[in-house]
Amino acid sequence: MITGKNHIGNQLSAKGTKTFKTFNPLLNIENDWEMTEAIAEEVNEAATLAAEAFKTYSKFSGYKKAKFLNAIADEIEALGDTLLDVYSSETGLPKGRAAGERGRTLGQLRTFANHVKAGNWVEASIDTAQPKRDPLPKVDLRKMNVAIGTVVVFGASNFPLAYSTAGGDTAAALAAGCPVIVKSHPMHAGTGYLVASAIIKAAINSDMPNGVFSNLNSNGIEVGQILVQNRNVKAVGFTGSIKGGRALYDLAAKRQEPIPVFAEMGSVNPVVIFPKALKSRAADIAKTYAKSITLGTGQFCTNPGLILGIKSEGLTNFVNALSKEIVQIEPSCMLHPNLVEAYEKNKAYIISQNGLKVLADYKTEVKINYARQAVTAVSGNIFLDNPTLHQEVFGPFSLVVRCENENQLQEIILNLEGQLTGTIISDDNEIQNYSEIVNALQNRVGRIIFNGVPTGVEVCPSMVHGGPYPASTDSRFTAVGVDSIKRFVRPVSYQDWPNDLLPDALKNENPLSILRNVNGQLTSEIIK
Amino acid sequence: MITGKNHIGNQLSAKGTKTFKTFNPLLNIENDWEMTEAIAEEVNEAATLAAEAFKTYSKFSGYKKAKFLNAIADEIEALGDTLLDVYSSETGLPKGRAAGERGRTLGQLRTFANHVKAGNWVEASIDTAQPKRDPLPKVDLRKMNVAIGTVVVFGASNFPLAYSTAGGDTAAALAAGCPVIVKSHPMHAGTGYLVASAIIKAAINSDMPNGVFSNLNSNGIEVGQILVQNRNVKAVGFTGSIKGGRALYDLAAKRQEPIPVFAEMGSVNPVVIFPKALKSRAADIAKTYAKSITLGTGQFCTNPGLILGIKSEGLTNFVNALSKEIVQIEPSCMLHPNLVEAYEKNKAYIISQNGLKVLADYKTEVKINYARQAVTAVSGNIFLDNPTLHQEVFGPFSLVVRCENENQLQEIILNLEGQLTGTIISDDNEIQNYSEIVNALQNRVGRIIFNGVPTGVEVCPSMVHGGPYPASTDSRFTAVGVDSIKRFVRPVSYQDWPNDLLPDALKNENPLSILRNVNGQLTSEIIK
Repeated sequence: MITGKNHIGNQLSAKGTKTFKTFNPLLNIENDWEMTEAIAEEVNEAATLAAEAFKTYSKFSGYKKAKFLNAIADEIEALGDTLLDVYSSETGLPKGRAAGERGRTLGQLRTFANHVKAGNWVEASIDTAQPKRDPLPKVDLRKMNVAIGTVVVFGASNFPLAYSTAGGDTAAALAAGCPVIVKSHPMHAGTGYLVASAIIKAAINSDMPNGVFSNLNSNGIEVGQILVQNRNVKAVGFTGSIKGGRALYDLAAKRQEPIPVFAEMGSVNPVVIFPKALKSRAADIAKTYAKSITLGTGQFCTNPGLILGIKSEGLTNFVNALSKEIVQIEPSCMLHPNLVEAYEKNKAYIISQNGLKVLADYKTEVKINYARQAVTAVSGNIFLDNPTLHQEVFGPFSLVVRCENENQLQEIILNLEGQLTGTIISDDNEIQNYSEIVNALQNRVGRIIFNGVPTGVEVCPSMVHGGPYPASTDSRFTAVGVDSIKRFVRPVSYQDWPNDLLPDALKNENPLSILRNVNGQLTSEIIK
Repeated sequence: MITGKNHIGNQLSAKGTKTFKTFNPLLNIENDWEMTEAIAEEVNEAATLAAEAFKTYSKFSGYKKAKFLNAIADEIEALGDTLLDVYSSETGLPKGRAAGERGRTLGQLRTFANHVKAGNWVEASIDTAQPKRDPLPKVDLRKMNVAIGTVVVFGASNFPLAYSTAGGDTAAALAAGCPVIVKSHPMHAGTGYLVASAIIKAAINSDMPNGVFSNLNSNGIEVGQILVQNRNVKAVGFTGSIKGGRALYDLAAKRQEPIPVFAEMGSVNPVVIFPKALKSRAADIAKTYAKSITLGTGQFCTNPGLILGIKSEGLTNFVNALSKEIVQIEPSCMLHPNLVEAYEKNKAYIISQNGLKVLADYKTEVKINYARQAVTAVSGNIFLDNPTLHQEVFGPFSLVVRCENENQLQEIILNLEGQLTGTIISDDNEIQNYSEIVNALQNRVGRIIFNGVPTGVEVCPSMVHGGPYPASTDSRFTAVGVDSIKRFVRPVSYQDWPNDLLPDALKNENPLSILRNVNGQLTSEIIK
């Protein structure tokens, strides 16, 4: 079933000799299927095919691309339980989570299908000619978004479906008209293989050009490096660690022709709890956050890794309650032994820092590959002095900072790196007393939450999943929601172009019936 | 009048000891006013002030920012002939051009004022809560664009007003809510000083925070380097050479927190003339292009530096006609002796390449600092083999490539670097026979022109001034037109945020009466 070969366009290919297996962390054994790593020759074949496919695929109508995206969703669904079983075998995550994530993935694909069918994403803008304008005549100018070229997608370890092979980046790029080459995540390469097979099946059945999609296996970093440096590759989507994302960003920036890299990376997702909230409902907040910190074994990029409060009885109560709550939660399995190892190592490193206090550490013996959740605390003074404490510990871990006062709380926020999210926990109107703190937090994040938890990323147009560096490498874009298509498009302007040769989106008669900015007015009217 | 000091926010400052003077190329003498270079301390003062100003300025309403932008335009206008005279003294350009460029600059500022007053640029998007959604309730999410932070602007040598101190980048950044620090172009630092004074006057009269604008003088590269590396700087706008732009891009990419650099750089703006057009109107096209090549002494980023045709009698006729036309045009003064020197050197270097033929070179003695226009030709084979011939020669210069056939023409386009513009000259419907060539050209450019010239950049929403590298460092944005604001904004999402604490753009009652995407529908209705 899983041959473990690479998908180079519509062909299966295994020219290399290096192989690897994925791992079942629950059973602590290797999975059966053997993946063959792509070699440089195959990487370049995929890139060349993609560049050729771009010539036609980038011109396809929204309807044709929508048909393809919907077919991908249908083919993934048709994989049925096989996909869910392989997913669980490669992650240790329960089948329910696998099914939920599959639902989200299908939803993303179908949402993008509707988005490109509706067609407004091209942001058509038309300024008609004024041949008699004084002193100079005005030319006719018409602008729309077009596909940027081949996009390379690096799947995320923690979302084998929704942020990987046919995940958000792939859906956005294909919707834009960009061929996609996926560097499959080695921890769930079998899942990736099955999804890639579904995409290729959909591509063939929808008459897509060969090369519109490729999927490459690799357990190392070399395949990714070659991909990012290939001259036919025009953009990169990545979800993962700061180290990995930054390395790709640096490589892309050093190219003769630098290309945009959208890397969604690290975040500790600061949570600020205001005094009255601490006073009135410390126990409730603690309960909610114990759950959020341990959700999915803490393997979410929006995991709340940093909790900020001002020293008070309320904060002490919260800390005590959180310490109790967190150890009552059953530990769970991480995706891969490497992640457990990294988690325990990073946790120990943070704990070893001067002045850090361990509030709660799950001490009972746990099964192999399970993570022991922990909560720690430190004073605001020490936190300000030690940037090591800003580091994300990927897993069920959080650090509470006891600030001396409001000023110190603000100073800490001002000195934080960029974040995916920031959360304010506030009672009634007390937030109004802290407008500078709220402003400071807003300036560091892509999404700001009121009285909630950062975990749980709603897929909708108003979501921003991204943020100032290192939350992402380009805060001007989101990785989630239909606007994520903007990462992979560029505007082109047509000057005095004959109407019948214009793309449909820009023709006088507006055959796509889309909304267009015509001489400054948003309208779907035809131009006479 | 021109003290030559730096504007550090509202203060004039000259802490350094290095000075320089600008140059009058027509008179071949230095101008009287002496500029004092900024020192590192002043650079950092400007950046610190800007970061402080950002806290309030970024939150100002569209009306307040519009008032400021309009006041800047009014104050620049109030400089009257003084500004035009200094402009001409520093560039050798005639007063008419100065007045025209001033008009464009004022127009840009006022257009952005209207744009932020209208308010739709924030691209507000609202997805309301669904508390009863099954299986999970849906949170309320509201997204809008916000200012990215302090923007550093590097003015262009060739547009002392429209692309410099208060030019397109500055107008876009201020409109977005970003404080601006200009690194004034040393060739027209006096003009920059006057414009900076006007901006500061406008800032004070409009109650803007100190630091919303600074203007720094420097004749070298160090001030720019310090600026781009300052941690309070969050984005860069640049117009100039590939070497300069790439150096800044590289510096910004190496920062601990990399920042976006939008550099609009080199372009040879290929023009493709199809056979029938060559056959039927070679002389007319030659006349038009002789003018376009020499317009403004060739000192436009959209100057047509590369003309592509297929070998034919028509092409021979065109080449002969162009050779005759171009030497009949009176040479004119370049902006600065350094530019003339670079022009003559680059021209000579291209001419020295193997197989290159000089068609026309203005041989008569010219006045000092005047540029001798030239047209050259080369075969398609040699052009394909020698990438040196792709280089821009900034000035009144063009290279005609005689392609063997259609395939070679296409191959040449496919191998070109990214361009600001591409032009097709075609008779009637012959363009329909060359769809692959047109597609290939469209993929390399930001703007594609039919039967026109690339010089002349209309400032309107449908303009794209930018393009694949090295036309710009990020093809996803334009440097001209209201959408250029997108370079300096990022989206922020508010989750479950109390209505009265939301920015006005996202409040239920839509107090700004802007268009918003509410649950997938574009509307200006209130939310009940």
